[in-house]
Amino acid sequence: MTATVGLDVGGTKLLAVVLDDSGAVLAAGRADTPRAGPRRAGVSQAGPGRAGARGGGEAGPAGAVLVQALVELALRVAGGASADISAVGVGVPGLVDPRGVLRFAPNLPAGEGVDFSSALRAGVGVSTIAVGNDATCAALGELTYGAASGLSDVLVVTLGTGIGGGVVVNGEILRGANGFAGEIGHVVVDPGGPACSCGQRGCWERYASGSGLARLAREAALGGRIDSVVRLAGGDPEAVRPEHVTAAAASGDQAAEAVMDELGWWIALGVANLVSVLDPELVVLGGGLMAAGDLVLTPTRRAFGELLQAAHERPAVGIVAAGLGENAGAVGAAVMARAEQPEVHRQ
Amino acid sequence: MTATVGLDVGGTKLLAVVLDDSGAVLAAGRADTPRAGPRRAGVSQAGPGRAGARGGGEAGPAGAVLVQALVELALRVAGGASADISAVGVGVPGLVDPRGVLRFAPNLPAGEGVDFSSALRAGVGVSTIAVGNDATCAALGELTYGAASGLSDVLVVTLGTGIGGGVVVNGEILRGANGFAGEIGHVVVDPGGPACSCGQRGCWERYASGSGLARLAREAALGGRIDSVVRLAGGDPEAVRPEHVTAAAASGDQAAEAVMDELGWWIALGVANLVSVLDPELVVLGGGLMAAGDLVLTPTRRAFGELLQAAHERPAVGIVAAGLGENAGAVGAAVMARAEQPEVHRQ
Repeated sequence: MTATVGLDVGGTKLLAVVLDDSGAVLAAGRADTPRAGPRRAGVSQAGPGRAGARGGGEAGPAGAVLVQALVELALRVAGGASADISAVGVGVPGLVDPRGVLRFAPNLPAGEGVDFSSALRAGVGVSTIAVGNDATCAALGELTYGAASGLSDVLVVTLGTGIGGGVVVNGEILRGANGFAGEIGHVVVDPGGPACSCGQRGCWERYASGSGLARLAREAALGGRIDSVVRLAGGDPEAVRPEHVTAAAASGDQAAEAVMDELGWWIALGVANLVSVLDPELVVLGGGLMAAGDLVLTPTRRAFGELLQAAHERPAVGIVAAGLGENAGAVGAAVMARAEQPEVHRQ
Repeated sequence: MTATVGLDVGGTKLLAVVLDDSGAVLAAGRADTPRAGPRRAGVSQAGPGRAGARGGGEAGPAGAVLVQALVELALRVAGGASADISAVGVGVPGLVDPRGVLRFAPNLPAGEGVDFSSALRAGVGVSTIAVGNDATCAALGELTYGAASGLSDVLVVTLGTGIGGGVVVNGEILRGANGFAGEIGHVVVDPGGPACSCGQRGCWERYASGSGLARLAREAALGGRIDSVVRLAGGDPEAVRPEHVTAAAASGDQAAEAVMDELGWWIALGVANLVSVLDPELVVLGGGLMAAGDLVLTPTRRAFGELLQAAHERPAVGIVAAGLGENAGAVGAAVMARAEQPEVHRQ
C-alpha cells in the first residue's frame, strides 16, 4: 500500500501523519520546533535589523536545524507505518513561493529563506514534495476529510502561535493571484495596538492567537485581575502562560473566564470581519489553541452574534472546531502532496 | 436594437445607463437620491429605534419615493436611447436577498425592506429585473468592460457615501454562500473608533469613504488644522465639506493635502488587509470619491506600500481607478440584467 506523509510546521511544534489513499491516518507523530537561532546565514539576531535581514537570502543555520528536525520526524512516522511513502507534503506558516521556498514567516524566522522542497527531497529520499501554507493545508484537510467536507463556502482559521487562514470558495481552496490568499493573521484590527513581528501594529494575531492569549493573560496578571491564576503559575505574574488561564477557566475561575471572554471577543471580531468579506456557510476553527475546546468556542460564538454585521438578516453562520483536530494541517499537507502525483488514485 | 438599463442607487445620487449588447453606453443620466423620510411603514425616525425598526417589515413612504425617483430616471434614460429595453438591472447599497429585496442598508435607510424587483417591474414595464449589491455590480462592470477586463483575481472597492466591495476570483464574481460576499465597508479596523450607522464601532467606511473624508475634514477643521479650507467654506468649521478639502488640495494647499494623506492612509489600511486575505493581482477603486482622482490615488498608493504585509516578497499589486469611472456600478447592473435573459446574445 502506498501512503503519503503530511507535515505541519508550527511556531512551537511539528506535527506529522502518514495518510493512506482512503484518508486513514496510519501513524502520527510530533516534535518540538527547534528554538530559533540566527534568522539567516551570516545575519545574527543583533544584526542589521529586520528589513536588512530580508529579501531572498539563504537559509541560515537555524533553517538547517529546522529541516533536520522535520526530516527526522518524517522518517520516524514513515517507519511507524507499514506503507511505501510516495510523496511528502509540508505546510509552513507564511508565504510560500512556487518553488517551495518560505518567503515570509513572522512566527518562524528560522524558516525564512528555507527551500523546503529541495531539503525534504534530499532528506527523506522521496521525489514528490509539495510545500504550501500551513493554514491552507488545514483548510484542504478539513475540506477533504473534516468539518468542511461536502461544503462549498467555508472559512478555516487556525489559532496557533499566530493565526492562519484557508478559504474555500465554490468547493475549492482560494489561492489568489500568487498563491498567498488567506493570510488573515496580519489583518490590522487596531492600528494603535501592540507592535507585531510582521512590522505592523495591531494585527489580529496579536489578540486572537496562542501568543495573543499569552499577551492578554500577561496584561491581566500584571493588572492584578487574575491573582488566582498567578498563584497557579507559582506567584510570578510574568510566569503566567495560556495553559494556566485555560486550566483555571476550566475549573470555573471567573477571572480566568473573563480573560477567555476577552480572547473570544477578539477571535469573533476578526471572524465577523471575514464573514462580511467572504460570506461563508461555516467557520472552522483549528490550531493548537483549540485544544481548549469550548473554553474558546463558547465566548467566540457569543461575541460573534453581537459583532456580525446584519446578523438578523443572514442565515446563521456556524462556528465549529476542526473535525481533524490538531492534525488538520498535517492531513491537508498529505492530501496536497497526493494531488501532485498524477498516477495516484484520488477519491 | 435591444438594450438594457442599468441603475446604481447611491446614498446621495442615482446613476443610470442604457447599455447595448456590445457594451456601448447609449445614454446616461443621474438624479439626486431622495432625502430619507421614515425608515419603514409606520416607523418614524423617533420611533422604537434601529433594532425595532428592522426584521422584514414593509418599505415605508420613503421607499416609495425612492422607487418613484428610480423609475423616472430609468424611463428618462430609456427614452433618450433609440432602443427597445429588454431588461433592467439595479445595484443597491447593502444586502439583497434572492427575491430582490434590500435587507440591510445603513447608507440607504429608506431602501430597507424595498422589493426593488417587483417595484421596477411594475414601474418600468419590463419583465426581466435583476437586483444586486451595488459594489458587486461595479465589479461586474469593471470585469466585463473596465479595468479588470481579462483578469482573474481582482478586488474592486467603491468609495462613495459608504464603502462597497466586489471580489473577482478565477475570473468570476465571488458571491459567497448567500450572495452577500464583498461587504467590506463594515470590516472593523478600529474597535475604539467612532460609532457606525450599522451599529458597530470603527468600521472601515467611517474613515475611508466620502462620509469618512467628511468626518476627517470636520475633525481637522475643528482642530484648527485646515484654517485655509475653513475660509474656503465661508469661515464656519462645521460647513467644511469633502469638496472643499479636495479643491484646496488640488490647488496645492498643504494642510488640505495632509487630510487627503490621512484619508489615503485609511483607504490603504483596509485595502492592505483585503489583499492579505484575497491576494488579488489588481485593486480597482471606484465610487464618487474617485472623482478626486490622483488626490485620492497618490496618497493611497504611497501608504499601501508601507502597510501591505510582506510587500517586498510579493509581485507588485497595482491600485488603479475604475475604467468605467462613476458609471461602473450602473454598467455592471445592466450586464447583470442582460445575463438573466437566456435568449440575449452575450459576448
